[in-house]
Amino acid sequence: VTGPIGVFDSGVGGLTVYRAIHEELPSEDLVYLGDTARLPYGTKSRETVVRYSMKNVEFLLSHGIKLLVVACNTASALALDEIRQAVDVPVVGVVEPGAEAAAAASRGGEVLVIGTESTVRSGAYEKAILERRPTLRVLQKACPLFVPLAEEGWVDNVVAREAARIYLEPFRGRGVDTLVLGCTHYPLLRNVIAEAIGPGVVLVDSAREAARSVRAALASALRIRQSDWGPGEKHFFVTDASERFRSVAETFLGGPIERLERVDIV
Amino acid sequence: VTGPIGVFDSGVGGLTVYRAIHEELPSEDLVYLGDTARLPYGTKSRETVVRYSMKNVEFLLSHGIKLLVVACNTASALALDEIRQAVDVPVVGVVEPGAEAAAAASRGGEVLVIGTESTVRSGAYEKAILERRPTLRVLQKACPLFVPLAEEGWVDNVVAREAARIYLEPFRGRGVDTLVLGCTHYPLLRNVIAEAIGPGVVLVDSAREAARSVRAALASALRIRQSDWGPGEKHFFVTDASERFRSVAETFLGGPIERLERVDIV
Repeated sequence: VTGPIGVFDSGVGGLTVYRAIHEELPSEDLVYLGDTARLPYGTKSRETVVRYSMKNVEFLLSHGIKLLVVACNTASALALDEIRQAVDVPVVGVVEPGAEAAAAASRGGEVLVIGTESTVRSGAYEKAILERRPTLRVLQKACPLFVPLAEEGWVDNVVAREAARIYLEPFRGRGVDTLVLGCTHYPLLRNVIAEAIGPGVVLVDSAREAARSVRAALASALRIRQSDWGPGEKHFFVTDASERFRSVAETFLGGPIERLERVDIV
Repeated sequence: VTGPIGVFDSGVGGLTVYRAIHEELPSEDLVYLGDTARLPYGTKSRETVVRYSMKNVEFLLSHGIKLLVVACNTASALALDEIRQAVDVPVVGVVEPGAEAAAAASRGGEVLVIGTESTVRSGAYEKAILERRPTLRVLQKACPLFVPLAEEGWVDNVVAREAARIYLEPFRGRGVDTLVLGCTHYPLLRNVIAEAIGPGVVLVDSAREAARSVRAALASALRIRQSDWGPGEKHFFVTDASERFRSVAETFLGGPIERLERVDIV
């Protein structure tokens, strides 16, 4: 039961996953790494995302983690196999839990997956959903502006609404019954996304599903800390100056971040 | 007169500078490096931008360049002193030529500089403009969404117009007579920027000014190639997979790019 859970993301987006894990398993120690010096991952190639991900994994392993969470959808889509081959601890990504939830939620119509360019190009969600329920039809759409909109805090204004409308209008009223928020930033834009895709569509948030997978993986390895242990220790690392990360993170997590350090990962 | 001109940028934005140099000095050999594996620079810290810039400079020096152009506004604002100290060839950034043009263009009212967060935070344009014309009033505004909008090709739609309106409306009708496009991506959004700031405001494009500075620096060092040498050789390098770069670059430069290679710079 000793050892923290290690979580990495390209930046602040993975904090949606961090928060879900913290709520699900409050007594666990957590080490979070945001690779802010090299974000975003979503417009970069598979090769580059794999290289950056392996560096992040090395760093987290040096902290004695008992389980690794790949909180970035792009890294989960492009680098999960390489990561699993390289490490001895259980690895939880966000694509498989999200696909599982989407396959369960669909009423048999179309599932629309939205994500970064690299995630969409990888086809990882489509593959994972069809493995679970081969009769579904899966559509995909890259929405590259959603990450910078979320980072700018423009999540509910006219710019966010018009961007969502342009990206999603072609899918509206076409039989989509389930929409997967296939990027950890996208839950921040949930309102404008829901409005653009129209009523009656279930929105799947991979962060919450990933947290449930973390609980299951720890339980099956008998390494879970029940909440009567008291609150776990939390430690944050970023690869670029932390001021921007701190302000976004504190707004997002609703309280001060005590342990935040900048580290060099080359 | 031998040796190419070396140009680096975080990605495709510096192609505005590349093109201006090519038009000004068609016979020069040019080596362009886009650090696409680590873009954007504009949201990153000074320390990180300096580190990345020095790696780019090392790479270009290994190609025997006779002059270095820092085509990225953020790198020009944050790393130019360090670069000049480290190299023996003349170095031309984009901030000083842009500041020079703004100081000359203003009718004595206010100059508004728009750029990335890091460029604005550095205050480099303000300092350079006031050194040249201390009586001007300089205002600054970071417009972080303009880079992803330009990269997405959304330069003249409702999203671009609304974003420009939100960023620039507070400055409209306030006495601004000159606006500096303090990021190499921004000339792509020139139309919506001009519309948002209102009539009667001169827009300064640092790319063209930088190209004139390159000519002047080469002429004073007697290292210029006159255009009767015939067309120079052009060589492009990127640090991440080149497909995206190629398509944006070919659209932007209006023709095929023949020599494009991916390189690892760590």
